[in-house]
Amino acid sequence: MLLEQINSPDQLKRLSVEELPKLAEEIRQFLIESLSKTGGHLASNLGVVELTIALHYLFDSPRDKMLWDVGHQAYVHKILTNRREMFPTLRQYKGLCGFPKMRESEHDVWETGHSSTSLSGAMGMATARDLKGEDNKVIAIIGDGALTGGMALEALNHIGETKKDLIVILNDNEMSISPNVGALHNHLARLRTNKSYNKIKEEVEQLLMKIPTVGAPFAKTVERIKDSLKYLVVSGVLFETLGFTYIGPVDGHKLDELMESLRLAGKTKGPVLVHVVTKKGYGYKPAENDSVVYHGVGTYKIESGAFQKKAGGAPAYPAVFGDTLVRLAANDERIVAVTPAMLTGSKLEKFQAAYPDRCFDVGIAEQHAVTFAAGLATQGIKPVLAIYSTFLQRGYDQVVHDVCRQNLPVVFAIDRAGFVGEDGETHQGIYDISFLRNQPNLVIMMPKDENELQHMLYTAVNHDGPIAVRYSKEAGVGVPMDEEFRVIPIGKSECVREGNDVAILAFGNMVPIALAASERLAADGIEARVINARFAKPLDTECLDELAREQIPVFTVEEACIAGGFGSAVLEYYAAQEQVGMVVKVLGVPDYYVEHGSIAEQRAEVGLTPDAIAEEVRRHVAQKIQKA
Amino acid sequence: MLLEQINSPDQLKRLSVEELPKLAEEIRQFLIESLSKTGGHLASNLGVVELTIALHYLFDSPRDKMLWDVGHQAYVHKILTNRREMFPTLRQYKGLCGFPKMRESEHDVWETGHSSTSLSGAMGMATARDLKGEDNKVIAIIGDGALTGGMALEALNHIGETKKDLIVILNDNEMSISPNVGALHNHLARLRTNKSYNKIKEEVEQLLMKIPTVGAPFAKTVERIKDSLKYLVVSGVLFETLGFTYIGPVDGHKLDELMESLRLAGKTKGPVLVHVVTKKGYGYKPAENDSVVYHGVGTYKIESGAFQKKAGGAPAYPAVFGDTLVRLAANDERIVAVTPAMLTGSKLEKFQAAYPDRCFDVGIAEQHAVTFAAGLATQGIKPVLAIYSTFLQRGYDQVVHDVCRQNLPVVFAIDRAGFVGEDGETHQGIYDISFLRNQPNLVIMMPKDENELQHMLYTAVNHDGPIAVRYSKEAGVGVPMDEEFRVIPIGKSECVREGNDVAILAFGNMVPIALAASERLAADGIEARVINARFAKPLDTECLDELAREQIPVFTVEEACIAGGFGSAVLEYYAAQEQVGMVVKVLGVPDYYVEHGSIAEQRAEVGLTPDAIAEEVRRHVAQKIQKA
Repeated sequence: MLLEQINSPDQLKRLSVEELPKLAEEIRQFLIESLSKTGGHLASNLGVVELTIALHYLFDSPRDKMLWDVGHQAYVHKILTNRREMFPTLRQYKGLCGFPKMRESEHDVWETGHSSTSLSGAMGMATARDLKGEDNKVIAIIGDGALTGGMALEALNHIGETKKDLIVILNDNEMSISPNVGALHNHLARLRTNKSYNKIKEEVEQLLMKIPTVGAPFAKTVERIKDSLKYLVVSGVLFETLGFTYIGPVDGHKLDELMESLRLAGKTKGPVLVHVVTKKGYGYKPAENDSVVYHGVGTYKIESGAFQKKAGGAPAYPAVFGDTLVRLAANDERIVAVTPAMLTGSKLEKFQAAYPDRCFDVGIAEQHAVTFAAGLATQGIKPVLAIYSTFLQRGYDQVVHDVCRQNLPVVFAIDRAGFVGEDGETHQGIYDISFLRNQPNLVIMMPKDENELQHMLYTAVNHDGPIAVRYSKEAGVGVPMDEEFRVIPIGKSECVREGNDVAILAFGNMVPIALAASERLAADGIEARVINARFAKPLDTECLDELAREQIPVFTVEEACIAGGFGSAVLEYYAAQEQVGMVVKVLGVPDYYVEHGSIAEQRAEVGLTPDAIAEEVRRHVAQKIQKA
Repeated sequence: MLLEQINSPDQLKRLSVEELPKLAEEIRQFLIESLSKTGGHLASNLGVVELTIALHYLFDSPRDKMLWDVGHQAYVHKILTNRREMFPTLRQYKGLCGFPKMRESEHDVWETGHSSTSLSGAMGMATARDLKGEDNKVIAIIGDGALTGGMALEALNHIGETKKDLIVILNDNEMSISPNVGALHNHLARLRTNKSYNKIKEEVEQLLMKIPTVGAPFAKTVERIKDSLKYLVVSGVLFETLGFTYIGPVDGHKLDELMESLRLAGKTKGPVLVHVVTKKGYGYKPAENDSVVYHGVGTYKIESGAFQKKAGGAPAYPAVFGDTLVRLAANDERIVAVTPAMLTGSKLEKFQAAYPDRCFDVGIAEQHAVTFAAGLATQGIKPVLAIYSTFLQRGYDQVVHDVCRQNLPVVFAIDRAGFVGEDGETHQGIYDISFLRNQPNLVIMMPKDENELQHMLYTAVNHDGPIAVRYSKEAGVGVPMDEEFRVIPIGKSECVREGNDVAILAFGNMVPIALAASERLAADGIEARVINARFAKPLDTECLDELAREQIPVFTVEEACIAGGFGSAVLEYYAAQEQVGMVVKVLGVPDYYVEHGSIAEQRAEVGLTPDAIAEEVRRHVAQKIQKA
């Protein structure tokens, strides 16, 4: 085994070039075996085995900076930088992070999780290098999907102008998480088929020699033709136009070709883009055949690729969203779906199959997705934007300026709200309430179970203004689904358990947890009223007034940050009402970044469990008795 | 006067083509005269007189949709759509809005203010049109500066692929608010000089005819050369590559040329980009000569262009920021400045002159600006990102994911925090506290006067983590400036007036207003303690604990939205401390969009004046006495 000897880039460099394909094979086997037990991002890492080896073989990390865009394809990098033995803990609580993490290694110089950030980060590092008079390389490795993100395009524009020495590795795997879209993608597809261009370069030059130039009647024209031929010979027109030297396309699974191109890139002055064509899942048939399904996986059987069956159970909220949207769209042809490259994740496949003309995957382009939806809404269409909470952060200004301020009826289906588990801190969906709640016109709701989710979606598409439904990625509660849709009155909560000692005001998926807490409390003789708040905005002020009249201590519970969240809104309301003496205790995610682990572990860490909530209530009641 | 007969596009269409230049001249005179009395966006509107006339002459608004990107260049459009007589009220309280406003006219189909949104909006409208089986035109008018904003590039990518009928007018005035930057800009500059290309098109085609194709030894190669010639004949390579038909460049001040190109665009299938070259300030010499200064103006003398002198008074916060940064940079070579196209607005001209290599204007690219700063910070550089509060919304995810989560020492100099006056609701800087406050690691401060601003900036560049200083666009207080910089202890407030009846906890520029309120209260025998809070995060918990111990009613005051703001943080703290019975009243901007007017009028509207604050306190004290 070569792999067992390689725990650093230095050790890698001691191998001969001839040994590298064997190492690649061993890494691939290691990934397939290790991830079969832990799950993780399989296909994308299988695709970059050779590329990562070549980069570490030729360049000098950490002096040379490697920035892994998105970062879920950095497993091979982690293996080569002394973290192979931690793979059994991958993405688990307190274990190896699924993304680059500075704390883990000096070779992780840039943390990612969200896409399209690497070019801006690299430009910052290259600029810092030049300011300090140093001479290290800066290398951003970015996928074709991430390249269409607006911030990556902004960065290309900046880098191309400044002529900084900077290497962009375009890892073109012909597919991001969802099939890729956009004109740029079409351009890349043409480039990939352009390999023959290099061959005919010489022919072209010979031909040109035969056309007389000086003194000929069309002299100037011929000169111009010669100029224009760079678009023929150098096929990366778009990147050349933006000021990059384009190298490629290169077969990302042929180490010799890769090495040659990367060496050339290392010697090239100014910004250079190496177009590397890779295959997601390369070397593992099940993943090659369906790289979307094998993008992020749970545990699986190595021989067949078959996933371990999960126990039946309730459908997950995203699946209920997808199914409901199909049903809603059947009765209202104004409804369309918009997704920024999360068609599969947001469970829109059925919708796309049923209504291909009403389903818009705009690629990794969150800002555009939001404002495209706003444009649709101005014309009487009812766009439902399916977007993860953490990615909605990227379209925040568009939510403010284009949707809420114009008071347009866009439905935000905010998926992955709350804790997300194994993806960890970069993906937690815990800020949306606080960054959305300051917007006039916007309604924000969250269902207590999957049945309420369908009613909230129905309510949303029939609401004449911006409205957001946030929901967890988790399985629902397992309640029966009503056949008929029902409008939920905007700003009306619901009492789900009577009680007069304390009130637990729970938002969305915290309702079942609050109910479980109330049972524990009842065992101690404390009767908790449990209220399904439903709305973070507008609040149910009648309900709050009633609690104030009865002077019942209130515990708000939400799977979101405490700062500026739902509980904070309750505090603001009582302060505005001058409800002095009202006890309100806000339970939610405290002020630090909660790392990867299972959702259950994350909840336990911050006290969002039945036991922890019950304990908090007990402590309060005990204090009160003590004081009395 | 032709202008007096024209109050609608229909009336415009009754003019002969020959009369249009005269109308253009009259509109130009009207603008120069009217804005000399009210101020407004002069140069950009002078640049689009002919373009706007041509658009309304040829197309059929509001059936055909015109989307004015940024929107400050829509004055001519407003004049032609029955709002000429409202111009004396331009940008004034309850007067004509400086941006497109649906409420004002059916011809305003899309509201703007922030840049780069029009393409996404247009794509939404074009998609809606096709879904509904209608056939109207959709026309986005976007500047060369706005085109480099990431969301515009995302939209180009989407539009180019889908082949929707959609017209993009690229209003290339060779300059956005700050001189334009980026590789795309260089591409446009090349296009502008490419007019001769059209002439030689025929020559080229003739030449190609002379080269034998069929059966010739280089047959295939010649075919490829012919293919590649589209890059010669059609000069808009970049846009063609992205799937657009490129028309141009067109002289934007020649009505005949404009009309011809726009007619052609109207007939072209699929997305088309018309590259119109205009001159900002065209037809008014002072504005032509300095379009940056004449971008947005106050009142001026028509003959000379001289601005009405403002009374001396204290320097404005942005100027103090600019001067301070120059001084700080002199003593610390790690300090650099980053701005997304607001070099002038953020008062970085002196810094740029003093340290050209340390000043980075990245163009309209807020997302990239934030993450570029993060990249710099990873390498020991100390980036100061000067950005308006309202535009920081566009880099929100980058603040969260790239800066705060990685705990990088980026300084956010948040300009235009609080009310912005005449620009109105699209530009109010009132959400930053609530969207930033949920981020661990981040420090958020605001100075009570311009002297404290310099100390806060000094504190910021010496702080090892992300830190934000927000400040108003207004004049400072007029206090003397200390010669030596001083570190302000993080999270420490300052008592600026003693008093034991109530406490006014004021954030930043609300301190002087709170002091004025306290004087009014003292006249009534109410002694208010006034505290300069300084920090919205971390809060001065010692100070808050003391107020709780003394059971002094607290009034928080901030020029920011109440929802999730500074006062909300105070409420959260007391709730966490179980300080039941503590009176906290939160004063700030309530839950609606505050429109254009003077800052004084905006403050009066929401009760952020000494009188209103004093009244609020009096009312509370009276209630208390009544209860007692």
